[in-house]
Amino acid sequence: MNDDTRYMALALSLGRRGQGNTWPNPAVGCVIVQDGRIVGRGWTAPGGRPHAEPQALAQAGDLARGATAYVSLEPCAHHGHTPPCAQALINAGVARVVAPISDSDPRVSGKGFDMLRAAGTEVTTGVLADRAARDLAGFFQRVETGRPRVTLKLASSFDGRIATATGESQWITGPQARRWVHGLRSRHDAVMVGAGTARADDPSLTVRDLGIDRQPVRIVVSRRLDLPLMGQLAQTARDIPVWICHGPHPDPILHRTWTDLGATLIGCDVQQGQIDPTALLAALGDRGLTRIFCEGGGALAASLLAHDKVDDLIGFTAGLTIGAEGLPAIGAMGLTQLSLAPRFTLQDVRAIGPDILHHWTRSA
Amino acid sequence: MNDDTRYMALALSLGRRGQGNTWPNPAVGCVIVQDGRIVGRGWTAPGGRPHAEPQALAQAGDLARGATAYVSLEPCAHHGHTPPCAQALINAGVARVVAPISDSDPRVSGKGFDMLRAAGTEVTTGVLADRAARDLAGFFQRVETGRPRVTLKLASSFDGRIATATGESQWITGPQARRWVHGLRSRHDAVMVGAGTARADDPSLTVRDLGIDRQPVRIVVSRRLDLPLMGQLAQTARDIPVWICHGPHPDPILHRTWTDLGATLIGCDVQQGQIDPTALLAALGDRGLTRIFCEGGGALAASLLAHDKVDDLIGFTAGLTIGAEGLPAIGAMGLTQLSLAPRFTLQDVRAIGPDILHHWTRSA
Repeated sequence: MNDDTRYMALALSLGRRGQGNTWPNPAVGCVIVQDGRIVGRGWTAPGGRPHAEPQALAQAGDLARGATAYVSLEPCAHHGHTPPCAQALINAGVARVVAPISDSDPRVSGKGFDMLRAAGTEVTTGVLADRAARDLAGFFQRVETGRPRVTLKLASSFDGRIATATGESQWITGPQARRWVHGLRSRHDAVMVGAGTARADDPSLTVRDLGIDRQPVRIVVSRRLDLPLMGQLAQTARDIPVWICHGPHPDPILHRTWTDLGATLIGCDVQQGQIDPTALLAALGDRGLTRIFCEGGGALAASLLAHDKVDDLIGFTAGLTIGAEGLPAIGAMGLTQLSLAPRFTLQDVRAIGPDILHHWTRSA
Repeated sequence: MNDDTRYMALALSLGRRGQGNTWPNPAVGCVIVQDGRIVGRGWTAPGGRPHAEPQALAQAGDLARGATAYVSLEPCAHHGHTPPCAQALINAGVARVVAPISDSDPRVSGKGFDMLRAAGTEVTTGVLADRAARDLAGFFQRVETGRPRVTLKLASSFDGRIATATGESQWITGPQARRWVHGLRSRHDAVMVGAGTARADDPSLTVRDLGIDRQPVRIVVSRRLDLPLMGQLAQTARDIPVWICHGPHPDPILHRTWTDLGATLIGCDVQQGQIDPTALLAALGDRGLTRIFCEGGGALAASLLAHDKVDDLIGFTAGLTIGAEGLPAIGAMGLTQLSLAPRFTLQDVRAIGPDILHHWTRSA
């Protein structure tokens, strides 16, 4: 691993600190190195600005002159809410900028690098490009397709059940896995569940015990808005955003009640009796979300999978068996033949306390 | 790791070579060391005899005099089909015997060590005792309880399905996992499936492509003997043992036909419409089996699990989803509350080609 790779790995890890907090902006990291010494570090602030570069430049001060800046994404070149970062790097006298990949935002793509080169700044690209593409996949996917990236997490028994026949589900996996899930929630822009899960578990869907300030948006997909009005989501919708994605022609009283409770209501098209996943994700992308963490239940999981909308699939599997009467982690998918089953490629498998974690991404 | 531990690890690994081939005898390994040099190695021969020690002694010849013998189980002290191994070690002039654990066979337990000590041979026990207990667990369990050890293997989709709604099951896991399964079969005394699997898949249940000579016994659990008479098991029952465990009062024509085909028929009690797992395993233990590898289907898996008869649980999980219409890996278990679910402790988790393998043992 040479110096460029090492400093870029650091910039990327700083960038990941912002995951879940910067939408609709990308979570970028920046490291400024002068004579082999790190003189500035920064990452996209919560809410998406300030960007990483001006924060790192502010730390570096005069030491930025003649330094190398490692940025995990092409610096921006457009005047938006902030002056362009490419200009800020030039103004500070940075001699060289290393970035893994271009921005796919058409307002930026290539223009940041052009602006730097035109000012005589050396530009190196391609360093750890795969890792940067992975870290920023949600941002890119939303810019390019309008659709946020979806992680589907299912915690089940050995035989893929998320509850007994009588609905008992606490606890199948252990405290270590549940804590890991809170970490995953915190790195996504939003946590999403189906209406069945919201009714059965009355979840708060917040990140707990990790000392974070900013909570992900909480999304419930409920065609008919038939959600518990006295539940945890209803009670806390004023403090932490609750978005309810519902079908056409909702009951006006329920619509009014949820609006009064502080929830944001988002109408979506319905297909075969269910919220259409394509319309759902387009609506959530429109509102700026880049990374969504779906925690089931079985019907929503099946719908997303059947429509090929799951980018990351994460399983927590516990060492117990519930049997076929138990509630399946994934509902009916309407699969007619095995060759049409959605397929995923293993990225990671490990023990988490008494359980296992397995992480897969959609196969190309 | 000191010398005793290192040589014992070797003796244990030699012993494991016999797994699946020595029933009803234990699969034991023996290493003879003279002045830091290995002068003899042996393991229980297919069929259970000769034992490991006389083979290692034969290799060592005169070099056994004054040597240390590492044996993975207490040497036998009783005159059976062969003279006692303890006596053979004494006769060869072995100065010291290292063994991890006593035999639990009442004809042997402690007597082998006593015989050695009485002859002036130094005896060391306890070295790698946990590993030896694990390797020989099937043998011990059968001697102590009459019941062979049961490994349940299930290869399923991410969501615990072993086939689509239309019964399509080839292939969910990849060739690497399937090859691994052949290795697992070869290390068990018998491979067992339920009648539904025998009918649906027409399996041969043999070990293939591993260059082994001796095949495990093939067991089908079929209450009514309603198995395909033209299938692979029927056609090969004369060459490789097929045992069919059936309920009381079988159809006499089917019973006669299967006997004529070369199968061994074993009557078992029925409980709630299914072969009683306790009676089933007692009957198989009576016939000498120590390690059984069950490959489903869902009904047999559920029955064994519900009766707490699964000692090792091995999952192969593929990165595809089938949905709730698919055939469940584990059938109905009649579980009334989560706290009563059979629980297992993780032993190993790893990637196998594109799939994952997870190995659990029954929690104490």
